[in-house]
Amino acid sequence: MTDKKVLSGAGLRGQVAGKTALSTVGKEGAGLTYRGYDVRELAVHASFEEVAYLLLFGELPNRAQLKDFETNLQHQRELPFALKTILENLSASSHPMDVLRTGISALGTMEPELNFSHQEETAIRILAILPSILCYWYQFSHFGKRISCQSEEPSYAGHFLAMMLDQKPSKLHTKVMNSSLILYAEHEFNASTFTARVCASTLSDLYSCITGAIGSLRGPLHGGANEAAMEMISEYKTV
Amino acid sequence: MTDKKVLSGAGLRGQVAGKTALSTVGKEGAGLTYRGYDVRELAVHASFEEVAYLLLFGELPNRAQLKDFETNLQHQRELPFALKTILENLSASSHPMDVLRTGISALGTMEPELNFSHQEETAIRILAILPSILCYWYQFSHFGKRISCQSEEPSYAGHFLAMMLDQKPSKLHTKVMNSSLILYAEHEFNASTFTARVCASTLSDLYSCITGAIGSLRGPLHGGANEAAMEMISEYKTV
Repeated sequence: MTDKKVLSGAGLRGQVAGKTALSTVGKEGAGLTYRGYDVRELAVHASFEEVAYLLLFGELPNRAQLKDFETNLQHQRELPFALKTILENLSASSHPMDVLRTGISALGTMEPELNFSHQEETAIRILAILPSILCYWYQFSHFGKRISCQSEEPSYAGHFLAMMLDQKPSKLHTKVMNSSLILYAEHEFNASTFTARVCASTLSDLYSCITGAIGSLRGPLHGGANEAAMEMISEYKTV
Repeated sequence: MTDKKVLSGAGLRGQVAGKTALSTVGKEGAGLTYRGYDVRELAVHASFEEVAYLLLFGELPNRAQLKDFETNLQHQRELPFALKTILENLSASSHPMDVLRTGISALGTMEPELNFSHQEETAIRILAILPSILCYWYQFSHFGKRISCQSEEPSYAGHFLAMMLDQKPSKLHTKVMNSSLILYAEHEFNASTFTARVCASTLSDLYSCITGAIGSLRGPLHGGANEAAMEMISEYKTV
């Protein structure tokens, strides 16, 4: 399931940039797959935590592995105090992607990667804390609220919504958010992944790689395209 | 003076990644050049400001242009108040490159690039403020001092030293720092430049590009190599 990735950007068009076993985009007859699984199946039948485990460790977790992984993510939701202060200093007009980029960069100074054997731990910490960074900033900058980064929601999707809305989310909203997170989890050799890989090639730390990747994902030709699509959809008055 | 750049990294070895008119590394008979000028000449005879102008605008400034450029840099040394608070929340044990990465990322939320026509202004602002970010954090985290980001030193090199040492630097130190800044100003198509260019290819903003580039420059196989060289030199007891 390892596919060579041929780049389609101007400067490197047609060149093989590297190999990835994570996913394929537009493979004949399959569409988007993660580790060989059709993303349409995953989006309906899996939890985001299962998919994150699949992408990180190469196979779907069994029941005990999933429980451990979920507990691990739940325990790592909290923000360091200094990071809360930093987020409180980013204004309401900040671009949310810039907030995430700054938050992960700052976390890298607070919980530095000591050596490469810590990268798995660091990856899980970053995954667990991203919603806390975004929602803490959002609630403080927009409403002056210092929210708790804990909630009673066990799932990643439900917890994210609980913090963002500052109330218990409905089952339907949680289900939709779960599917959305799965559909955005991987997209093979895109610009943000490429940025992270160039950064990693210097043996820099994981925080630098993710910080750089967020900066690329921000661009209108990459993740920013979602914003443009949302704006277009907002213009329609009926279904 | 536009040269195609052939990559030497593993995944893209031998491929042409893009073109640059900025500099050449190891060109036959010339060594390192910036816009065609031998870096050895520049390091001895030019100021860092002249070289920065050369790299940004394509040619060396005349006397009036240089004066304007110097004044512009001097006027943009100050840190926004919120950025000072953020820097005060980064501990003394932070890696200096992580501090710069976080500082530029945070600045991107405070003084966002409104459109591409602002990129020249943004580039000059980033250039002017980088020493302030580093030295403000250093003096606060190590000595509890909230330094002024103004000094009586007109030159970039002298001002940097004045803030870092919190005293007037000697002429010799300023001259050495000036040469050092010139020698590090450009190095063609290295990993940090490559990171910035991948990020820019998504039409993301300049802050994201520079934040990502700093994250790559941090790596032991890139800028981090200087640290390793310095550690080796430190072991010698005599010249």
